Amino acid sequence: MNRSKSAYIRPLDIKNGRVEINHGGGGRASAQLIETLFVAAFDNEYLRQGNDGVILPLPPAGGRLVMSTDGHVVSPLFFPGGDIGSLAVHGTINDVAMMGAKPLWLSASFILEEGLPLADLQCIVASMAQASKTAGVPVVCGDTKVVERGKADGLYIATTGVGYVAEGVAPSGDSACAGDVILLSGTIGDHGMAVMSKRENMEFESTIKSDSASLHSMVADMLATGAKIHVLRDPTRGGLATTLNEIAKQSGVGMVIDEASIPINPTVAAACEFLGFDPLHVANEGKLVAICPAADAEKLLTAIRSHPIGIHAAQIGEVIKDDSCFVQMKTSLGGRRMVDWLTGDQLPRIC
Amino acid sequence: MNRSKSAYIRPLDIKNGRVEINHGGGGRASAQLIETLFVAAFDNEYLRQGNDGVILPLPPAGGRLVMSTDGHVVSPLFFPGGDIGSLAVHGTINDVAMMGAKPLWLSASFILEEGLPLADLQCIVASMAQASKTAGVPVVCGDTKVVERGKADGLYIATTGVGYVAEGVAPSGDSACAGDVILLSGTIGDHGMAVMSKRENMEFESTIKSDSASLHSMVADMLATGAKIHVLRDPTRGGLATTLNEIAKQSGVGMVIDEASIPINPTVAAACEFLGFDPLHVANEGKLVAICPAADAEKLLTAIRSHPIGIHAAQIGEVIKDDSCFVQMKTSLGGRRMVDWLTGDQLPRIC
Repeated sequence: MNRSKSAYIRPLDIKNGRVEINHGGGGRASAQLIETLFVAAFDNEYLRQGNDGVILPLPPAGGRLVMSTDGHVVSPLFFPGGDIGSLAVHGTINDVAMMGAKPLWLSASFILEEGLPLADLQCIVASMAQASKTAGVPVVCGDTKVVERGKADGLYIATTGVGYVAEGVAPSGDSACAGDVILLSGTIGDHGMAVMSKRENMEFESTIKSDSASLHSMVADMLATGAKIHVLRDPTRGGLATTLNEIAKQSGVGMVIDEASIPINPTVAAACEFLGFDPLHVANEGKLVAICPAADAEKLLTAIRSHPIGIHAAQIGEVIKDDSCFVQMKTSLGGRRMVDWLTGDQLPRIC
Repeated sequence: MNRSKSAYIRPLDIKNGRVEINHGGGGRASAQLIETLFVAAFDNEYLRQGNDGVILPLPPAGGRLVMSTDGHVVSPLFFPGGDIGSLAVHGTINDVAMMGAKPLWLSASFILEEGLPLADLQCIVASMAQASKTAGVPVVCGDTKVVERGKADGLYIATTGVGYVAEGVAPSGDSACAGDVILLSGTIGDHGMAVMSKRENMEFESTIKSDSASLHSMVADMLATGAKIHVLRDPTRGGLATTLNEIAKQSGVGMVIDEASIPINPTVAAACEFLGFDPLHVANEGKLVAICPAADAEKLLTAIRSHPIGIHAAQIGEVIKDDSCFVQMKTSLGGRRMVDWLTGDQLPRIC
């Protein structure tokens, strides 16, 4: 966002206007779009530096940096409980937070389709700015490109986050141990089913809302307990099932989870059944899985449940020794079944 | 790139296969694509951590961080002198370098169109990995999404760079002063005309090659001279004209440049004339503008010219007092004309 204020050009008609190819050309029209729409919404001391890159203070010595990036292509752009803008902020903040880190800064790269209504863009940018302000993690630099009609789908947003993690804090997917327990911070499937029901124009008795939210303050509360946390991960694309399988594989362990203990919103469960989805494979955008020694579980659960978005948290299973790295589930009917990775393409463009 | 090695799935057919929707689903197919194509090419200790984010060492105290992001949507994907992969590396490294910083790490977010030949993707990723290795700036984290046919144009790549700048080094667009001189590191218009001639299937007597290259080692050489550098910027989208206007506006100064002193490849000049482009508005991807006190110009020019990609460097003009912030040019015919920002959409999707 290194373009200076432009002059000699008619004002942007945000109400009726649309994104035009020259908004991405790097000239006067680009500068105007960036000033009027982006800088105004994200306004902060860093963005105002106005150069190709942004200068940021170095965090205190003794810790490490964390970096994570995510492209966001969700369709539709607006869904109950959020939109691509807030999602792009939450998704990247959460990936940084899952390293046990404090997210510090975000960058945002926008790929806009020619013809996108400027009013929609403004709405999305406002929602993104709000999510960033609520989380206390500013968008410090950005970029805007425009592609021709039919070469994108409204817009895509790639966000990158940088954070700081204190020495000694190191949750990692390869650190689950036999005997550990598995905690889940709330209900599963809300995000994926909110997007799907909007996409399919389905109506359920009560609206399914995305759980899209920033998890870093919950992670800070968890770390503050002093409990050992071996693994932290947010079960996004591929759902809880894929996340647990990834961790099992990385750590070389097995897992047994208990179906009855996994929180799920009844409307989400009904929608999954109706549409033929396994809720274990449906994406979440405001939930985390924590794996910790059994002795630390209660302390962590209390911290999670004390957070406004963690009230339905539960212990859902345990880590076992298993060289095959299988994830099994005790079903509500008393049986056992394998919980596999997501294999097919049941839920494209969910984030 | 936090997906573990998958199993029980047929091997990727890179020679004849294409990107499928389920390569972006976050499940087994995503994991396979990432392992086979991305992790193999970018292989480094950071990427192998295999978590949602990557842990990076904190640079030494006393300096500051720099962050910059860029979306890359160039069309066509392959052009003489480069491709979208190498461009995505060079573009972001250069934005970090223009802050006087040493680029340390890159992230890469890929948005792939269903149907993209895997062989093309492999080629682009290999070129990206090569550019990253040559520059000594590793791709430490990434993300891959897939959108349906007709919702992208092969692929888009958003890269974010993080670097480190020593205390006291602070080139900035608002620091040009009357009396300063303007240096340019080489010929203008090569990138834009290479892309345009490929896009239009034009043949010139000699092929026009993009100048796409990393500039950070040249910047390091310039800083090592101890010369004062007030402004550093790479004239990409919008070309030299737009970059000078941006700086003039930010610094509240005017500029006078000398047409005869601006290096240009004769084939590029001919192509611009033929296609009706002003070379001052055509994008560059391996050039920099440096603005410095007149007393430091010779030292800096020598450093730039000693670098393999700076041999055609020249002093092209000077900064003057002008509250209107106009950029003027003494033409080769002895007249003067205004040099304006790029206003239209003459060169879409150039980077």
